[in-house]
Amino acid sequence: IDEAEADLRDLMNIPDNYDVLLVQGGASTQFEAVPLNLLKKGRADYIVTGNFAKKAYKEAQKYGDVRVAASSEDKNFTYIPDFDDSSFRSDIDYVHCTSNNTIYGSRMRKFPSVETLVCDMSSNILSEVYDVNKFGVIYAGAQKNVAPAGVVILIVREDLLGHELPITPKVMNFAKLAEADSMLNTPNCFGIYVAGLTFKWIKAQGGVAALEKVNIEKAKLLYDYLDESKLFKGTVVPKDRSLMNVPFVTDSDDLNAKFIAEAKANGFVNLKGHRTVGGMRASIYNAMPVEGVEKLVDFMKEFEANN
Amino acid sequence: IDEAEADLRDLMNIPDNYDVLLVQGGASTQFEAVPLNLLKKGRADYIVTGNFAKKAYKEAQKYGDVRVAASSEDKNFTYIPDFDDSSFRSDIDYVHCTSNNTIYGSRMRKFPSVETLVCDMSSNILSEVYDVNKFGVIYAGAQKNVAPAGVVILIVREDLLGHELPITPKVMNFAKLAEADSMLNTPNCFGIYVAGLTFKWIKAQGGVAALEKVNIEKAKLLYDYLDESKLFKGTVVPKDRSLMNVPFVTDSDDLNAKFIAEAKANGFVNLKGHRTVGGMRASIYNAMPVEGVEKLVDFMKEFEANN
Repeated sequence: IDEAEADLRDLMNIPDNYDVLLVQGGASTQFEAVPLNLLKKGRADYIVTGNFAKKAYKEAQKYGDVRVAASSEDKNFTYIPDFDDSSFRSDIDYVHCTSNNTIYGSRMRKFPSVETLVCDMSSNILSEVYDVNKFGVIYAGAQKNVAPAGVVILIVREDLLGHELPITPKVMNFAKLAEADSMLNTPNCFGIYVAGLTFKWIKAQGGVAALEKVNIEKAKLLYDYLDESKLFKGTVVPKDRSLMNVPFVTDSDDLNAKFIAEAKANGFVNLKGHRTVGGMRASIYNAMPVEGVEKLVDFMKEFEANN
Repeated sequence: IDEAEADLRDLMNIPDNYDVLLVQGGASTQFEAVPLNLLKKGRADYIVTGNFAKKAYKEAQKYGDVRVAASSEDKNFTYIPDFDDSSFRSDIDYVHCTSNNTIYGSRMRKFPSVETLVCDMSSNILSEVYDVNKFGVIYAGAQKNVAPAGVVILIVREDLLGHELPITPKVMNFAKLAEADSMLNTPNCFGIYVAGLTFKWIKAQGGVAALEKVNIEKAKLLYDYLDESKLFKGTVVPKDRSLMNVPFVTDSDDLNAKFIAEAKANGFVNLKGHRTVGGMRASIYNAMPVEGVEKLVDFMKEFEANN
């Protein structure tokens, strides 16, 4: 666990005044742990950009005066809503945001400048370079870019420790987890071991900046084709497109279904979009090589020519 | 997950009016989830028989009027305290107990007859036959007899669902977990997969009754020798001895240290006792074959002859 933590600190250039924890559960656990630990004054603002952002907002309401500061729900989360300093209340404990939206395929490029910014990075941690100093808390369920489900990466600025509500379960208490070096109880040893292997793999790839370059290349291949295709189109506003999840549709549900079936028969699996978006979604996480995306684009071109 | 649940239902003969869940975390998560879900009237009694039983009691105090009904802390948890119907208040939501105490090596043989008995079976689930009907809730962290750390087996009588306190985190909400068939969020897939393999292995051994027979045989080998030895002695009152964890000591700390070192050199590892007990502890969980215990006893006899 020490080695995994040290490697993650290197990879994300995490300053010394942040604790790095590897805790049990998933991002959903943090939807409650974050308000329980940070609601000192009892108020927080949420940026709602997708399904999980909305869940985080909903669960936090149990513990304080929690408000939506900006939302893109009006257009089925196909864009990142605009915000500026006036979007947030001045007397709040934190602003919560989600850096990448798995289901809707959008991604934040700009972040609020507030004292305590909390970010759910579950679906794009370690896929592009972030300046940790801009965040108070970063959390990420491991199962997209890091390890099997059951471990959460939790990065907490030290001044935020020790202000938890008295009702906070001990296993969710950031200060106690930090004090025990993530081993308050038996940790998810296997998950942490695999996370450690992934961190070493990322180092061997040249670090996060090198992966970011590859991820931009992969996404560009797919988006460039979507923009020139007469059959397929992307569902997200171009400036807010995700590097990890690329949703796309044709004009016809029947054609979508036909594409998904033929793609599967050709070895391209899990391309069905989430039921709330429909159509298709290509998830091209860190583990997907450029060749995988090239082959998908070739297959899509062939399908377009035939249909 | 469905197959793992069905196999566990077979193995423990779990009645239909119980939900079987495989949730994230460890027993420590349930120390808080239990009171959050069951404290309808706000009162519970705890039987404190060891380190984890005491932690469960301590964490529950955050959420209601929680009392120790019986404790063996006066003699460093070397026995199971006696209790009868008068030990428990009549207007409580539940009684909490721990079937086996890992650190102290004691084991409950008799259980309270109360409407809702909650039992932490983390360190001896599936090692002996229990009548699930006697319990309202059974929970067990997986890492002793089932799977790698990070999964909890949670068996809940259905009438106990839906009474959670409003502050209960969703990921700890028994009713919501049951409604979602343990998949409220991405579950610990790997842990559940390994749990499923273990359940099939137990079936292949002849089920829990067959393992119980082997476990009794294993424990008897060790306890019989401890009772006849002039050098070693067991630390727990004979009638309350665990089948899983066997703590023992010599009269001398130096001799204990010498034994642990020589044992290790001979391939018997992890025999050092917990710091609160000192001496030695042999953990002989389901995975330990009879031959392992026979070899340990032979080695102890040789050590006794030489010292």
